[in-house]
Amino acid sequence: MDKQSAIGVFDSGLGGLTVVRAIIEQLEFEDIVYLGDTARIPYGTRSAQTVVRYARNCAEKLREHDIKLLVVACNTVSAVALDILREQIDLPILGVIAPGAKAAVEASRRGRIGVIGTLATIASGAYVRAITAIDPRMKVYARATPLLVPLAEEGWTQGEVPRLAVRHYFEPLVESDIDVVVLGCTHYPLLRSVIEGEVGMLFSRPISVVDSAQATAQQLASLLREKRLRAEKKRPGSLRLMVTDKPGRFAEVASRFLGRNLDGLDIRQIDLL
Amino acid sequence: MDKQSAIGVFDSGLGGLTVVRAIIEQLEFEDIVYLGDTARIPYGTRSAQTVVRYARNCAEKLREHDIKLLVVACNTVSAVALDILREQIDLPILGVIAPGAKAAVEASRRGRIGVIGTLATIASGAYVRAITAIDPRMKVYARATPLLVPLAEEGWTQGEVPRLAVRHYFEPLVESDIDVVVLGCTHYPLLRSVIEGEVGMLFSRPISVVDSAQATAQQLASLLREKRLRAEKKRPGSLRLMVTDKPGRFAEVASRFLGRNLDGLDIRQIDLL
Repeated sequence: MDKQSAIGVFDSGLGGLTVVRAIIEQLEFEDIVYLGDTARIPYGTRSAQTVVRYARNCAEKLREHDIKLLVVACNTVSAVALDILREQIDLPILGVIAPGAKAAVEASRRGRIGVIGTLATIASGAYVRAITAIDPRMKVYARATPLLVPLAEEGWTQGEVPRLAVRHYFEPLVESDIDVVVLGCTHYPLLRSVIEGEVGMLFSRPISVVDSAQATAQQLASLLREKRLRAEKKRPGSLRLMVTDKPGRFAEVASRFLGRNLDGLDIRQIDLL
Repeated sequence: MDKQSAIGVFDSGLGGLTVVRAIIEQLEFEDIVYLGDTARIPYGTRSAQTVVRYARNCAEKLREHDIKLLVVACNTVSAVALDILREQIDLPILGVIAPGAKAAVEASRRGRIGVIGTLATIASGAYVRAITAIDPRMKVYARATPLLVPLAEEGWTQGEVPRLAVRHYFEPLVESDIDVVVLGCTHYPLLRSVIEGEVGMLFSRPISVVDSAQATAQQLASLLREKRLRAEKKRPGSLRLMVTDKPGRFAEVASRFLGRNLDGLDIRQIDLL
């Protein structure tokens, strides 16, 4: 393992490909190996013990690929299993929650932060903990916005339905006087423009949108620099994809999250059990 | 096992409670034992082999409760595992697809039937097979309507968002000249009124809506009569619920599907593994 080794990224499904996309945009010389545990998605409804076991399976599979660092591109795993993974895996490990929390605290002027995510992520309280751990004076207003996941997966990111869904979810936040919104789910970057548009209409003040995928890629860049693990600028990085199941519309959904088509990619279906 | 034994019902989650609700409405003297395999939901993204294994786990667990008949209130299991279950389980077994198909064929005058369901159910082709097996002249127009599941789970069954989502999904069906729509997912009965309203506006002709939960309860009543297994009219039937995991908003979602609150119900969390 050295600085030319790949970065390992895993998620319970394909949503983590938005994190891969942000990494490619910011770190074009890095090789990436991605594992989507699509056969066992969603993790969000499993017990913490089961999530830890699944996460360890994913991490161990990625270690077989001589990785130099592990990115947990899954909010559920980042919420419940990071500490245990760090004890068991001798590699730098980065989750998606701490980077999003850090970016939000930096972006907020009034110290009032909105967070949206899946029911499981919001119920875990992980963003509230991560944000107040950085600065206990921060007020966090968290809201589960479950309909945004199927909208993103379907590619239904424009028009009245996503617009009204976003409005419905954000209306109760207007009174809370937030000045930052964290997209606390790997699916939500696909809806960024409708969220920005609708939030802009609803709130009569500027609201910063923090994309935790981009925040994670930024923190990854710092971490690689700090550990002297950045790849040399020799050639564009490669991308390999592994999935544990290949659902019918795999290519369609994966290319939507990745922001490019899958032609020429090395895609393998593997078994973790 | 005799006619006073309970009816066993299982689903991958809580959606099957709409079938339980329909059974209670039509067969008030029957005892029901329901098993929701909430720890392993969704089945729709698993391989057929895995679905068969999970279904057998559920069926065997229900057999421990001295049941007289098994209702598979899960479209995925009904699509891929009924024949195998029938070989292995020596009980009358009823799925949700055949009753919905039968009711649709009976309701259609022009022989053009629309079916809506999850991506997995529609991709399986099970409704097309079930309907054309009854009458090969039937034309079936199937459409996946994935957003309707989270809308039903959230209880978001009124207003612009569900109305526009239904309109979006049904617009491509207008040209197909259907006169019946089958609700091919256990979640959709919660959206029946918005579907009926919107379909009524979109199509300039009457469209019958077939609720497969109600069709299943009707077929169950016939089957019990035929096998002389109907419970005696002594006392109102009991309902016991078992789940393999109890997610945070269990009570909220379960009561929404069941159409009543859960007070006084016998609810247990069990382990199938």
